[in-house]
Amino acid sequence: MNYTVQVKVMPLKELLDPQGKAVMGGLQNLGIKTVQDVRIGKTIQLQVEAPSSEEAKKIAADASNKLLANPVMEYFEISVL
Amino acid sequence: MNYTVQVKVMPLKELLDPQGKAVMGGLQNLGIKTVQDVRIGKTIQLQVEAPSSEEAKKIAADASNKLLANPVMEYFEISVL
Repeated sequence: MNYTVQVKVMPLKELLDPQGKAVMGGLQNLGIKTVQDVRIGKTIQLQVEAPSSEEAKKIAADASNKLLANPVMEYFEISVL
Repeated sequence: MNYTVQVKVMPLKELLDPQGKAVMGGLQNLGIKTVQDVRIGKTIQLQVEAPSSEEAKKIAADASNKLLANPVMEYFEISVL
């Protein structure tokens, strides 16, 4: 079966996120001042051919560890849509 | 109150996603051949100060329309965590 698996890759909470800080500055300049923090990560949607959703999740975790996320700076969360 | 609002920005389904295609090539080279399609977008987490979660969502939608997403090439989904 074909599963849509979503991998969310975010910068680790302990690390600064300069891209997020820049976007927050942009929002302030646009007059949106109620936003207090911004963190930016990636969303990766995979179409995985697998016998079960568990198996699809496992393939996505494998892909994340090998290529999609850098564990030194990022963490990832996997969900099957 | 302080709300964590997540904005998922993805390339429109009708458009090619060259970054996703490149990642798919990378996965194939790593031997992960059950992945049939990859699309890559952004996840943006906002800390919003707002009286209600509805209001927080509205602020995030405003921010997305003005800065975070390019409606010509991307669509976005907002969820309050």
